[in-house]
Amino acid sequence: MNKNKRKKHHKKIGQIPGTLIYTGDKTNKLSIECFDYNSNQLEDKQCNKVEDVFHYKATETITWININGLNNTDEIYKLGQAFNIHTLSLEDIVNISQRPKIDEYNDYLLVILKMLYYDNNNVLKSEQISLILSQNFVITLQEAEGDVFDSIRDRIRLAKGKIRNSGSDYLLYALIDAITDHYYYIIEKITDKVENLEDLIFNQKEQKNLSQDIHQLKKEILKIRRTIFPLREIINKIEKSESPYINPKTIHYIRDVYDHSLQISESIELNREMIFGLMDMHMTTISNKMNEVMKVLTIIATIFIPLTFIAGIYGMNFDNIPELHYKYSYFMLLGIMALLFIGMLYYFKRKKWL
Amino acid sequence: MNKNKRKKHHKKIGQIPGTLIYTGDKTNKLSIECFDYNSNQLEDKQCNKVEDVFHYKATETITWININGLNNTDEIYKLGQAFNIHTLSLEDIVNISQRPKIDEYNDYLLVILKMLYYDNNNVLKSEQISLILSQNFVITLQEAEGDVFDSIRDRIRLAKGKIRNSGSDYLLYALIDAITDHYYYIIEKITDKVENLEDLIFNQKEQKNLSQDIHQLKKEILKIRRTIFPLREIINKIEKSESPYINPKTIHYIRDVYDHSLQISESIELNREMIFGLMDMHMTTISNKMNEVMKVLTIIATIFIPLTFIAGIYGMNFDNIPELHYKYSYFMLLGIMALLFIGMLYYFKRKKWL
Amino acid sequence: MNKNKRKKHHKKIGQIPGTLIYTGDKTNKLSIECFDYNSNQLEDKQCNKVEDVFHYKATETITWININGLNNTDEIYKLGQAFNIHTLSLEDIVNISQRPKIDEYNDYLLVILKMLYYDNNNVLKSEQISLILSQNFVITLQEAEGDVFDSIRDRIRLAKGKIRNSGSDYLLYALIDAITDHYYYIIEKITDKVENLEDLIFNQKEQKNLSQDIHQLKKEILKIRRTIFPLREIINKIEKSESPYINPKTIHYIRDVYDHSLQISESIELNREMIFGLMDMHMTTISNKMNEVMKVLTIIATIFIPLTFIAGIYGMNFDNIPELHYKYSYFMLLGIMALLFIGMLYYFKRKKWL
Amino acid sequence: MNKNKRKKHHKKIGQIPGTLIYTGDKTNKLSIECFDYNSNQLEDKQCNKVEDVFHYKATETITWININGLNNTDEIYKLGQAFNIHTLSLEDIVNISQRPKIDEYNDYLLVILKMLYYDNNNVLKSEQISLILSQNFVITLQEAEGDVFDSIRDRIRLAKGKIRNSGSDYLLYALIDAITDHYYYIIEKITDKVENLEDLIFNQKEQKNLSQDIHQLKKEILKIRRTIFPLREIINKIEKSESPYINPKTIHYIRDVYDHSLQISESIELNREMIFGLMDMHMTTISNKMNEVMKVLTIIATIFIPLTFIAGIYGMNFDNIPELHYKYSYFMLLGIMALLFIGMLYYFKRKKWL
Amino acid sequence: MNKNKRKKHHKKIGQIPGTLIYTGDKTNKLSIECFDYNSNQLEDKQCNKVEDVFHYKATETITWININGLNNTDEIYKLGQAFNIHTLSLEDIVNISQRPKIDEYNDYLLVILKMLYYDNNNVLKSEQISLILSQNFVITLQEAEGDVFDSIRDRIRLAKGKIRNSGSDYLLYALIDAITDHYYYIIEKITDKVENLEDLIFNQKEQKNLSQDIHQLKKEILKIRRTIFPLREIINKIEKSESPYINPKTIHYIRDVYDHSLQISESIELNREMIFGLMDMHMTTISNKMNEVMKVLTIIATIFIPLTFIAGIYGMNFDNIPELHYKYSYFMLLGIMALLFIGMLYYFKRKKWL
Repeated sequence: MNKNKRKKHHKKIGQIPGTLIYTGDKTNKLSIECFDYNSNQLEDKQCNKVEDVFHYKATETITWININGLNNTDEIYKLGQAFNIHTLSLEDIVNISQRPKIDEYNDYLLVILKMLYYDNNNVLKSEQISLILSQNFVITLQEAEGDVFDSIRDRIRLAKGKIRNSGSDYLLYALIDAITDHYYYIIEKITDKVENLEDLIFNQKEQKNLSQDIHQLKKEILKIRRTIFPLREIINKIEKSESPYINPKTIHYIRDVYDHSLQISESIELNREMIFGLMDMHMTTISNKMNEVMKVLTIIATIFIPLTFIAGIYGMNFDNIPELHYKYSYFMLLGIMALLFIGMLYYFKRKKWL
Repeated sequence: MNKNKRKKHHKKIGQIPGTLIYTGDKTNKLSIECFDYNSNQLEDKQCNKVEDVFHYKATETITWININGLNNTDEIYKLGQAFNIHTLSLEDIVNISQRPKIDEYNDYLLVILKMLYYDNNNVLKSEQISLILSQNFVITLQEAEGDVFDSIRDRIRLAKGKIRNSGSDYLLYALIDAITDHYYYIIEKITDKVENLEDLIFNQKEQKNLSQDIHQLKKEILKIRRTIFPLREIINKIEKSESPYINPKTIHYIRDVYDHSLQISESIELNREMIFGLMDMHMTTISNKMNEVMKVLTIIATIFIPLTFIAGIYGMNFDNIPELHYKYSYFMLLGIMALLFIGMLYYFKRKKWL
Repeated sequence: MNKNKRKKHHKKIGQIPGTLIYTGDKTNKLSIECFDYNSNQLEDKQCNKVEDVFHYKATETITWININGLNNTDEIYKLGQAFNIHTLSLEDIVNISQRPKIDEYNDYLLVILKMLYYDNNNVLKSEQISLILSQNFVITLQEAEGDVFDSIRDRIRLAKGKIRNSGSDYLLYALIDAITDHYYYIIEKITDKVENLEDLIFNQKEQKNLSQDIHQLKKEILKIRRTIFPLREIINKIEKSESPYINPKTIHYIRDVYDHSLQISESIELNREMIFGLMDMHMTTISNKMNEVMKVLTIIATIFIPLTFIAGIYGMNFDNIPELHYKYSYFMLLGIMALLFIGMLYYFKRKKWL
Repeated sequence: MNKNKRKKHHKKIGQIPGTLIYTGDKTNKLSIECFDYNSNQLEDKQCNKVEDVFHYKATETITWININGLNNTDEIYKLGQAFNIHTLSLEDIVNISQRPKIDEYNDYLLVILKMLYYDNNNVLKSEQISLILSQNFVITLQEAEGDVFDSIRDRIRLAKGKIRNSGSDYLLYALIDAITDHYYYIIEKITDKVENLEDLIFNQKEQKNLSQDIHQLKKEILKIRRTIFPLREIINKIEKSESPYINPKTIHYIRDVYDHSLQISESIELNREMIFGLMDMHMTTISNKMNEVMKVLTIIATIFIPLTFIAGIYGMNFDNIPELHYKYSYFMLLGIMALLFIGMLYYFKRKKWL
Repeated sequence: MNKNKRKKHHKKIGQIPGTLIYTGDKTNKLSIECFDYNSNQLEDKQCNKVEDVFHYKATETITWININGLNNTDEIYKLGQAFNIHTLSLEDIVNISQRPKIDEYNDYLLVILKMLYYDNNNVLKSEQISLILSQNFVITLQEAEGDVFDSIRDRIRLAKGKIRNSGSDYLLYALIDAITDHYYYIIEKITDKVENLEDLIFNQKEQKNLSQDIHQLKKEILKIRRTIFPLREIINKIEKSESPYINPKTIHYIRDVYDHSLQISESIELNREMIFGLMDMHMTTISNKMNEVMKVLTIIATIFIPLTFIAGIYGMNFDNIPELHYKYSYFMLLGIMALLFIGMLYYFKRKKWL
């Protein structure tokens, strides 16, 4: 949760429920993208006024209305009125610090999800996307242009796959599937990051303190987890819902997304377990390095401290130190010292310190 | 749990159930605030005697009776009698060490919550607030004046939003929503504290022992968690309850508060996970610091201990040490020592200790 | 589990089910206390023979029979026969290493709880208490005299509160409430102990090893937890039970005890989390202390080892060391050494080691 | 899982389901023990051929057939055919690496449990025991002779307790109760071991590395836990089962065993929590020991390194060191050194290092 | 998840659901193995074209069609069309990064499992296997030839066991049982690895850093766990499913596999708990080693530093050091030093440092 988002939330506190306040910081002109199709015909339209899409509510054809620019709350309010969307839903749609969720109303089904992506500075960002499913239309609302739905636009335009022959529920499925598929990129990126950190910890030459990196990655994983975990529950609710807008034939597809969300959740959990273990690894590695340093100190000190003492003995100025006056005593002493030196080396060797 | 509260609880032990004993330490004169309204009319009244509000029980209009000063247990008892509140409920209302909870009675619904705030010394405080919902009235009981309901007072007075056109259940929702909204402030404060501590740990120049700070923050988080966690369950029970006082149309609003309580719980959990990890970070940082200290000691000792030994050798007073008498042996020895010095520096460089 | 209790259990292994063996070590003469009352009359009797209370089974009045001295298994067997208590229940009643539990039989409801108290040596003790609820009587069985029921005796004698106007189920509630209320004392004591240990860890001057104290307190907390946790489930079962002996009007009271048991469980859990964290705190504190010791060693050694080396140089006995013969070279060397000394102090200051 | 057992399992992999392969390593001659009784009569028989017990299937009396020697798979197969035991059940009975479980078949109820015991070398062993309950008989199958059922044999022979007046379900209960009772011994042994280890850690004089002992005990506890935990579920299933072979009157007894299994599980869990904590204790103790060692080194080094430097100063051979020639300078220097020595001792005292 | 698999998944993102894309990296020519049997007759056929097996769909006999080579997606698509397999199922079958799962369709039951094996480089590999159960046939699809089903082929060919007399559900059971049985090998291998690591940690002579090995093994265990854990749920779903293709008589066999999967899960959990403990063990061992090193350093330094100081005293060049001129003062000093030496050795002995 960055400071911006948190500050924005303040604007909301104490507001009348149902007041539309955009809590994000992206300001864009409203742009509306509209696909109206059935198996035979397709209308693909761009417009800037919500009033231009009101008439799709009544058509028999399937309509996908994609709205970019949540900051235009007045327009969104007008849209909500036209399509019978509850003001609480509209409030949730423009409040981008919403937790992913599903709400069933009599007239529609509201699904709020997060798209995750890494921005140019390699910082993980999330963008809220709301999907409204009703009899013959799906409305999607995003903060800004740019999303993961290009392949769906292609499929509609080129009439690839079942999409043109299916209802609005299949369209909803296709959109959620596209969002979920994109999570795989994030999971891969995170897995790479964890593995890189592992390599750094085990192979590092310098004694760099990686605990901050581990901590940051842990935070990132926890953030992703928080975004992804509700997904499982949401899709499960769609599957279990007895909403009239969900065709039983679509259930097999929903279940397929459910399997994907399970797999993504497990991958993020696995990464979480690995990153928690990494801190311990790092501490053990540091302890081990320190051990090595201590050994060198101990060997040097243990060898030379006694030798220095002996040299000190014969540096004393007593009048009567008989050894000082023998002709070869210096050389004998050097010999004794050499023997001591070799003996201690041998001892350390045996102790496996060398 | 501060010592005051704990001491107060003693007064209760062994008491007859249904005895009203205020366990807090705030003593205030009773003050009653009263809003009686429907979509057309509004009566906004202040009074000091509970008897002044008894007649609202029978009116068709919606009444919000807000009572400050739980220490006036006799007055509260009288109020309870007049509004058919069970003595067990009254006992819970004045016992401020109550766990947040919901109790369904035939005549009313009792919700007990905590308001959290930081006092002037930046110490986290909680104040208990009880909400009684019945057909046409909501009674709220607080320890002292000062609360988070000003926006609701405004909405009633200025007839903003749906509040004047809705029943007592919507009023209850609005009050709980205001309390819940306020938790966001607390969560933000805690998130800031955790992030500050992170900064301190990773960037600290001095080797300050932060474990006490971490421990205190952990305690604070656990305390908040304990206050906030029952909220989810309470709101869930309101949603699921088949109480005749809850209009089905209000359920969507209740569910919205439920989503908020979920989000708050997740945020506090996230903070809890972060603070638990911080202790490990701190220990790793300390270990790393120690490592650095050890390296300096090791380098200095490893370089100078052997050199000192050599100097000791030629400080010995043997009669026959031939080297002592050559003209340039001193300079040669200095040279050898310099070579040893450089050699060891190179060795440490290669070992990445420098 | 102290050795006594464990040894006692041996006596039971291999016994025929339904054999009454007292597994405690308190031997007392049987004493029976008996309250027979309704709203108008009260008989308050002490006796020593179980036969004296048999006739209460048939009376319409409410009777509380409190039996002290579980070691008198023969008498308890006779009592069981007279009141239709299953031998398995009797076996559980006298086996004091029983886990707290509730058993529903056709004729009665058996609740086994533990009273916790600190004895004169401040050692935590638990005493088992069994409560049998039937149509018009409650039988309580304790190991020895001395309990937490004095306030209830007063209420019966002085006809305070609802107790004289209520059935045996309210009496059961009042007894369980008294036991539960007493747990608050224990929780407070434990909270104090945890907080004292916190203070010791953070403020300790000496490097005392507190790990044993932490370990002991952890064991105590786990023991209390084990005693208190089943309570929640027991009271929940009473609430949910469709026993004919529980009047629906008493349910509100039972639910109140349930709230208390929840609160007690949470407090003990909070203490458990704190004590688990304390060990980490303690280790960090110890590491930090060691760090400080290491720093002193490093500073002293790093400063004086090079200086000693220099002194060693000029203690060598080479014939030709020109510096030795200049007039002020000694003073210059002292100056150089002082500069080195100051330089190193400055370095450590900058490294924040001083 | 020792290597023997694991190797034995190989024999099974790829076998046709229902193939009887004994996976243990005990080879014994088949011995059959047979009790046929009702309240009036008792036949107590030993035999070696399974055919000798086939006729008990049809009798009205209760029969307990105890078979030792699972390695005689052919005989067990014949027995299974005679008593209508499914080959999958027989396969499970002779596969001693079976997880404790309960299987309900139309004709019988199969319960597989483990008896735990310490062998002569104080190594924990488990022996599998299978119990088959049908209308009028119970068949138990063990690997070898020697079990925990002697008290039940006595009860049958001497007509003690209810056993001779009850059905086969009560016999099953009595057998399971005997096995469960025996677990108390194991729990006590483990509790003793954990407490001994605690004593060793806290009172140890030598710096012995106890981590291996802790690890071994942890493994033992995990092994016991794995054996004991399914018990709770098994007994619960017996209680809940609507098997025609379980008389409702026996349910109270089954519930009693259930309480025991709960208590045993909790004890083993408590031990597990303690042993997990012990490792931390041990590490803290080791850290503390190291601290003490470091302090001694620091004190000695910090005191003598500066003093040695001073002595080195006056060991230098400069021509002009004025101090050397004053009459009492040697004694003054000794005095200064003594003052330094005392001063440093005082400093360490104040720092609580001494 | 190795890089290959992850890269392959990219190919899938954005594809139309129901598009068959093989995500593995094994490219094999399609080979089909076909067993068509009932109790009287058996046809055992190898072929390369899917069209050759289409006619088995209509036969009354039981048919097992085993297909190797998932990369031949076109052929698999044709097969799917012929046997009425949903394209989503076909997509899952060829997407080898599928999570193990079960899907119930009207016409068939799809089970996706993983076979685990160690390749020649002792690296753990998993291969996906899909099993389709319908009225009279089972289709299995594998990435490449080579599997764990040889014993089943033998049983069909030699009419061993019940397989030739049972339906397709029994064949499914036999195949799953073979896969599950094979997991025991993996568990044994992992148990051996954990035990080897334990031995290395406790008995290691050199101070090798094993944290990387522990980490790798942990990853391997987590990977296996992820593969094996869904198995329990899958088999449970088969047991609970009311699929018309599962004969009630087969349920006992399914339950047997369920018991196996429980046992395997528990074994892997046990290994997981052990490996998590091993890191702590390793850290304690390292700490202990360091302790030992520190002791040697401390002993040597503590003994010789004071002695060296004394020698330094008498190496000073003061004019007036009376002790220097006594005849035996050198020898007396040596004696004093020897006493100090012995005294300190005694002190360390008493402190248990030697």
